Amino acid sequence: MHDAREVVVLRYGHRPGRDDRMTTHVGLTARALGADRVIFPDNAGQSAETVRDITDRFGGPFAVELRDDQKAIVRDFEGVVAHLTMYGERVQDVEEDVREAVGLGGSDATDGESTPRDLLVVVGGEKVPWALYERADFNVGVTNQPHSEVAGLAVFLDRLFEGAELDREWENADRRVMPEATGKTVIDAGEGPAGDDNSETGDRG
Amino acid sequence: MHDAREVVVLRYGHRPGRDDRMTTHVGLTARALGADRVIFPDNAGQSAETVRDITDRFGGPFAVELRDDQKAIVRDFEGVVAHLTMYGERVQDVEEDVREAVGLGGSDATDGESTPRDLLVVVGGEKVPWALYERADFNVGVTNQPHSEVAGLAVFLDRLFEGAELDREWENADRRVMPEATGKTVIDAGEGPAGDDNSETGDRG
Repeated sequence: MHDAREVVVLRYGHRPGRDDRMTTHVGLTARALGADRVIFPDNAGQSAETVRDITDRFGGPFAVELRDDQKAIVRDFEGVVAHLTMYGERVQDVEEDVREAVGLGGSDATDGESTPRDLLVVVGGEKVPWALYERADFNVGVTNQPHSEVAGLAVFLDRLFEGAELDREWENADRRVMPEATGKTVIDAGEGPAGDDNSETGDRG
Repeated sequence: MHDAREVVVLRYGHRPGRDDRMTTHVGLTARALGADRVIFPDNAGQSAETVRDITDRFGGPFAVELRDDQKAIVRDFEGVVAHLTMYGERVQDVEEDVREAVGLGGSDATDGESTPRDLLVVVGGEKVPWALYERADFNVGVTNQPHSEVAGLAVFLDRLFEGAELDREWENADRRVMPEATGKTVIDAGEGPAGDDNSETGDRG
């Protein structure tokens, strides 16, 4: 979302069939809430296709990658690694540190902004290896309760960007939903009304 | 989460098998992020069981209900109804109105707090009826992008409670996760170490 810094979400582990929808939702949430790119395991091709299809229709830029080397991605990432886990430090305690580490901090006028650095946000699927806990610059718990990796990612990104992601403009969108109090209005890129479109649930992975 | 006001999450629609995990994650997210109760359709018994089991082990209070009369629940709800939908008004534009409507607003010292009212947060699963859009006091879009009902619920609750839900204390918990920078520590209710417990992913629906 920010030119000088890339925020990448890595979905760690994927069980085809069983995890398809969760992985798809991780990807769509990453896109909708300000990440620049998502990396799925290479056995998550169906989820990748869904997220790419949504990006084609609703805009970007947003990249989807399939990779088979998740351990290496984490190990070799040149930037800050934040691993979301219910065993981690409380998000409310470390979010400012994460923001500062990637150059999003410095709201204090005397501070100035720190240098932008890339951020890898790791979202566990299957059991993650212990090495990930050790490599991570931050192990972050969005609550220390068992809930949902999609929910954790959503709250983490909203806090990382302090809500700025909600005002993002989308490029090369074929269609756009008009926010309204009561209605379901989708317009096409040419700004003419495209009529109701009930198929856009993002919920086909 | 607040004594004088009940926040209830209604999962609208559920397809057994296909939706089990999403519905479970809606329930666990509602619990973890400050709601008092979740209502599932009566065909979501498996998800209800999982959420109850997590509540038994990790604490409450949090209630799980199965009901077959979702339309009536929405129609007859005595309080404020917020329906999460990608077609709705932008969450950043209406969150203060929602907070004020349920008596969570009034940060302005001259305002005072408004009267606490119950809040029903409706999370769509299958296609929701048009009557729901009309009955809702607020149709709210956590972005107007297709992503995930779990992500939308998470961001909505975090903004509704302004993060206060993250400091919630849990009662009658058998076990508790200790937040830490690198580690996976679970203690039992007697405060003795219970050792590693890798099974708590909340991810069995």
